[in-house]
Amino acid sequence: MSRQLAVGIDLGGTNIVTALVADDGQILGIVSRRTDACRGADCVVGEMADTVNGLISENSVSQDDVVGLGIGTPGPLRLSKGFIHRSANLPGWENVPIRQWLQEKTGLSVQLENDANAAAYAEHWVGAGKDFGDQVTLTLGTGIGAGAIIGGEILRGHFENAAEFGHTIVELDGRPCSCGQKGCLEQYASPGNIAKYAIEQIRKGSESSLGPVLKANGAFDSQAIAEAARAGDSLADTIWDEACRYIALACVNIQHTVNPEMLVLAGGMSKSGDFLLGRVRQHFVAQTWKIFEDKPKIVLSNLGGNAGVIGAAGLAWKAHRSGAACLNTATVK
Amino acid sequence: MSRQLAVGIDLGGTNIVTALVADDGQILGIVSRRTDACRGADCVVGEMADTVNGLISENSVSQDDVVGLGIGTPGPLRLSKGFIHRSANLPGWENVPIRQWLQEKTGLSVQLENDANAAAYAEHWVGAGKDFGDQVTLTLGTGIGAGAIIGGEILRGHFENAAEFGHTIVELDGRPCSCGQKGCLEQYASPGNIAKYAIEQIRKGSESSLGPVLKANGAFDSQAIAEAARAGDSLADTIWDEACRYIALACVNIQHTVNPEMLVLAGGMSKSGDFLLGRVRQHFVAQTWKIFEDKPKIVLSNLGGNAGVIGAAGLAWKAHRSGAACLNTATVK
Repeated sequence: MSRQLAVGIDLGGTNIVTALVADDGQILGIVSRRTDACRGADCVVGEMADTVNGLISENSVSQDDVVGLGIGTPGPLRLSKGFIHRSANLPGWENVPIRQWLQEKTGLSVQLENDANAAAYAEHWVGAGKDFGDQVTLTLGTGIGAGAIIGGEILRGHFENAAEFGHTIVELDGRPCSCGQKGCLEQYASPGNIAKYAIEQIRKGSESSLGPVLKANGAFDSQAIAEAARAGDSLADTIWDEACRYIALACVNIQHTVNPEMLVLAGGMSKSGDFLLGRVRQHFVAQTWKIFEDKPKIVLSNLGGNAGVIGAAGLAWKAHRSGAACLNTATVK
Repeated sequence: MSRQLAVGIDLGGTNIVTALVADDGQILGIVSRRTDACRGADCVVGEMADTVNGLISENSVSQDDVVGLGIGTPGPLRLSKGFIHRSANLPGWENVPIRQWLQEKTGLSVQLENDANAAAYAEHWVGAGKDFGDQVTLTLGTGIGAGAIIGGEILRGHFENAAEFGHTIVELDGRPCSCGQKGCLEQYASPGNIAKYAIEQIRKGSESSLGPVLKANGAFDSQAIAEAARAGDSLADTIWDEACRYIALACVNIQHTVNPEMLVLAGGMSKSGDFLLGRVRQHFVAQTWKIFEDKPKIVLSNLGGNAGVIGAAGLAWKAHRSGAACLNTATVK
C-alpha cells in the first residue's frame, strides 16, 4: 500500500477516536477506545501512541507514507507551546505537553488543535462548507464548541482561544456556567444542559411524556426531548424551541461578528436533523436584521460524529502540504 | 512643500471632516463642514471634492505629493464595488458609487471603508493599539460601531460587514432597534440611546438633577448623565452603570469571539474618560471567566474625535505602500 495517509486523533472526555485519513478526507481505518483520563496524561498518551502505531501496522501502511498526525482536544490549549492547558473533560490534566509526547512516541510530526476548530476545519475541507468561503461551525455537544474559518485559516485570536461562541453571554446575570460566567449560550442551548433542565422541570412536577422515561432510565438526552416534542409533548416542545431560539440568537451574533457565508450545525444535537435546522432557521429569520442582505446559509454537518477526527488529520495534511510548498517540492500524490 | 500626504475624509451624518495626514498619522490640515445629506449624494460628493482640492492648494501641496484618498462612511457598504449601500444617517443615499465619483472629481486613488473600521485602523496604526496585536475598537457614538484588526488587517467578513458588535443581540426579545432587530447592544449602551432612555424616565416622573436641565434645554447627552452620576445623582448613576455593564458584556463576547489582545473604547462616550473605563473594567472582571488567562487589555482611544479621519488617510497610505511594494519601488519618503 503506497498511498499517503495522515493520522487523526479526536481526544474526548469519553472516547479517543483514531483514524487513518486520505488526502480527500476519506477514512481508511478507524478505532475508538475509552479515554480513562483519570489514569493520568502520560499513561493515556502512551496508549494513544500504541493505538496509532497499531493502526498503521494493521493497515499495512509504511511509516514513510504517513505524512503526519493531527490531534483535536478539548481546550483551552496553549497551541503555540503544544500544551493542553487544562480541561473540564480531562480531570487532572494540566499543562500537558501533548504535542511533544506524541511526537516522541510516534516519530510523527504532530499538529495540536482545539477539538471544535478541528471539526470546523473538516467541514471546510471536505464537509458541508467545502465549496463555501468564511464559515463557522457550532458543535452542539455536551457543551457548545465552535470554530471559525476565515480565508481558509482557523481564526485563532491573540490568546489562541477565539470563536468560543458557547461562552458568549446571552443573558446578563443568567444561569451560572461551569466556566465561572453567568448566562453563557451553552447553558441555554447545549444538548447536555437542556436535558438537565428538562429533568429538573419534571422532578419539580411538570407534566411530560418524558416523566415515565426518566422514572425507568434515570435520565434522557436531547434526542429524547426532540422526539417527545415532535410527538406533541408540550414541555419538551417549549424546551426544544427555547434552545433553538438561543442557537438562532448565536447565529445572528455570528453574522454580525465573523460575518461568514455559512454556519454549520454539528455535534450530537445535529442528529435531530431538520427538527433542529428548521427551528433554528425560523428563529434566525425572525431575529436578524432586514437592512442588509448578509445572512449566512445555515446547514447541518454532513460528517456526523467523525468531523473532529477528519479535521485533525486534515490539519496534518495541511501542514504537510505547506511544508512541501516551502521546499518547492510539492510532491504530494 | 515636498512631503508626501494622504487625504482622509470622515463622512458623518452631521459633519464631513477632511484632513491632510502625513505617513506618521500627523494631521497637517483639517476642515469640518456640515453634511446636509438631504441635498443629494452627487451634490454632497461634489462639495467633498471641492474641499479636498481646496485643502490641497491652501496647504501648498503639489498634487504629485498626495498619495491617495481614504474615506470612512456609515455602513452598510458594498466595499468591493465602492458603493454606499444605504445609511440610516444619510437619508436618501442608496447605492451611491462614492468611490468612483470621488476618483473622477479629485483625480486621486480612493479607498472606501466603513467609518468604525477606519477608526479601528487608526488606533492600530498610530493610536492606543499601536504596539499591540489583534484588537477591536468600539466607537460609542450615536449608535455603536466597531472594527476588528486581525493580523494587521481589517476583518471584513464574507459579506464585507463583519464586527458589527453594536447589533449583536444582548437581550432576547429586548428593546426594538432601528435595524429591525430586538435587544441590540446599542439600544442598551450607546450614548444616544442612554440619553433617550434617561429623558423618558424623567418625563415619566423619575427624580433627577437632570430634570431641570431637560426643562431648560429640551435635551441632554450622555456626558451630562456621566457628570450627574459622578455628582451622586441616583437615576443617572443607575443608567450609566447599566450601560457600562452592557459594554462590559460586549467586551466578554469580543474576548470569546475575536480573542484580541486589546479593546479600545472610542467615540463620544469615551470623552467621559476614567468614569467610563473604570466602570467597564470593573464589570468586565466581574463577568468574564476565570478558567483561562485571555483577558484583553481595555483602554480608551487616544485619538479623540479624529480617529475616523486619520484611519481613512491611513488606509490610503496602506494602499499606496502595498502598490509601491508590488511594483518593487518602495519610494515612500
